[in-house]
Amino acid sequence: MKMIRNLDARDADRLIEAATDKANEIGVPQNIAVVDAAGHLLAFRRMDGAKFISVDIALAKAFTAAGARKSTADIGPATQPGQPGYGIQNLQGGRFTTLPGGIPITVEGAVVGAIGVSSGSTSEDVEVAQSAVSRFATMKKAD
Amino acid sequence: MKMIRNLDARDADRLIEAATDKANEIGVPQNIAVVDAAGHLLAFRRMDGAKFISVDIALAKAFTAAGARKSTADIGPATQPGQPGYGIQNLQGGRFTTLPGGIPITVEGAVVGAIGVSSGSTSEDVEVAQSAVSRFATMKKAD
Amino acid sequence: MKMIRNLDARDADRLIEAATDKANEIGVPQNIAVVDAAGHLLAFRRMDGAKFISVDIALAKAFTAAGARKSTADIGPATQPGQPGYGIQNLQGGRFTTLPGGIPITVEGAVVGAIGVSSGSTSEDVEVAQSAVSRFATMKKAD
Amino acid sequence: MKMIRNLDARDADRLIEAATDKANEIGVPQNIAVVDAAGHLLAFRRMDGAKFISVDIALAKAFTAAGARKSTADIGPATQPGQPGYGIQNLQGGRFTTLPGGIPITVEGAVVGAIGVSSGSTSEDVEVAQSAVSRFATMKKAD
Repeated sequence: MKMIRNLDARDADRLIEAATDKANEIGVPQNIAVVDAAGHLLAFRRMDGAKFISVDIALAKAFTAAGARKSTADIGPATQPGQPGYGIQNLQGGRFTTLPGGIPITVEGAVVGAIGVSSGSTSEDVEVAQSAVSRFATMKKAD
Repeated sequence: MKMIRNLDARDADRLIEAATDKANEIGVPQNIAVVDAAGHLLAFRRMDGAKFISVDIALAKAFTAAGARKSTADIGPATQPGQPGYGIQNLQGGRFTTLPGGIPITVEGAVVGAIGVSSGSTSEDVEVAQSAVSRFATMKKAD
Repeated sequence: MKMIRNLDARDADRLIEAATDKANEIGVPQNIAVVDAAGHLLAFRRMDGAKFISVDIALAKAFTAAGARKSTADIGPATQPGQPGYGIQNLQGGRFTTLPGGIPITVEGAVVGAIGVSSGSTSEDVEVAQSAVSRFATMKKAD
Repeated sequence: MKMIRNLDARDADRLIEAATDKANEIGVPQNIAVVDAAGHLLAFRRMDGAKFISVDIALAKAFTAAGARKSTADIGPATQPGQPGYGIQNLQGGRFTTLPGGIPITVEGAVVGAIGVSSGSTSEDVEVAQSAVSRFATMKKAD
């Protein structure tokens, strides 16, 4: 038997709030998804003005970052034509994405979940996700 | 051209909070999903202790209630063997469900979204969803 | 943050071995699947003579038992025509099954995974799964 | 009528063990899948620490190697943009992959099954799969 550290509902709320704050700050409404260590959805928010087509993209970004244990932006290069990871986006029933904006949440070296952000440009999505992850880490230290 | 009355992000938060309060009151952690008038996800919360397998079920309940414009519990009878609606659960890529716990949100006769609740017994799911819908209606009158 | 108790690889091996022993004892080759608390596959064995069509059924039984936190045999009655759970088998992309032979593994009240067995009659599948769960519980007490 | 030479359950166990040993030797926990000559799952193990998202990838690698009768790494080049095999990853319901780490098992020129390994880097996956195939060949000669 083993013990797995995992995000809880309060952690998920904090991540959603932190991402919302950043999205408001830069004026870009976003879809924000938070999954647990097993890739299962914990929380989601679509801000007013965020694209409906990006709902599933935010979900896929969070799922992929939790499962691959790395930022989706860091997976992309190895999946380009000619690279060994080419075609990985066809697996996982359309839930595996290398679109930037999915970032794992790590505590003491273990991935405990992930956040996925989608509706802005990819750099805006990454900025909001990264800001939420950083602020969450700061909050956890203060707990 | 037409105007669509629709739930916004604040409405979705209120529905999630109202459902969470009821779930806590009856001591049953739930997955809670809120979709807009188009059936697209607006907000989601998995409370600590809610089943992971019920995440997709909550999403399906909300989607179905918004799309069919009726409570999922009210759709079931017409889909039984021998009825004209038999087999409808096979449509929509597995997102159409008659499991009780999906309820549309109606304002002045128009469906503006829906809530789906799943993880408890079907009666607990319905109780939480119904409570959220009722409290939301009260809040809107007070606005 | 929360801590989740979960089956590990050694636990999964023990469950596979215990199920294999029982299957040999009753002379019925089986497909045996073990998933963790999040429903993800940990271990699988197809014994010589087990049906290939039952591979996915064993996987679905284990997934469903872990997710629903109850034996698949106990879910079936509420999903019959006329019951509130009618149609639930259409959800989860064909991975939700009420075929008997999926049983959750529980430790101190928490579901830590599940086993799914398929290739025999449903009573043979249940017998093998139940035997593995019982023997596993005995082994854990002896640890 | 014809006779099909095929991996049996004991062969599958040996392949799983051989792959596990190599994975432990290089310190990379892996998902390991073994399929028979028909591409149907025979055995699977997720080592402690292996990624859940790579479960399905290991399954896909084994399935593809058995079906295409070649290493997944060797299929990739012919599926690149501009090549005739472009887009093949879209077939087989997301089970066809050219990610390296799927290798067929061959006996006297006939493919009798395949192994798929996933969770490490692609070179680590290939190293573990190749080691298992080589050690299995040695064992079979000694039988």
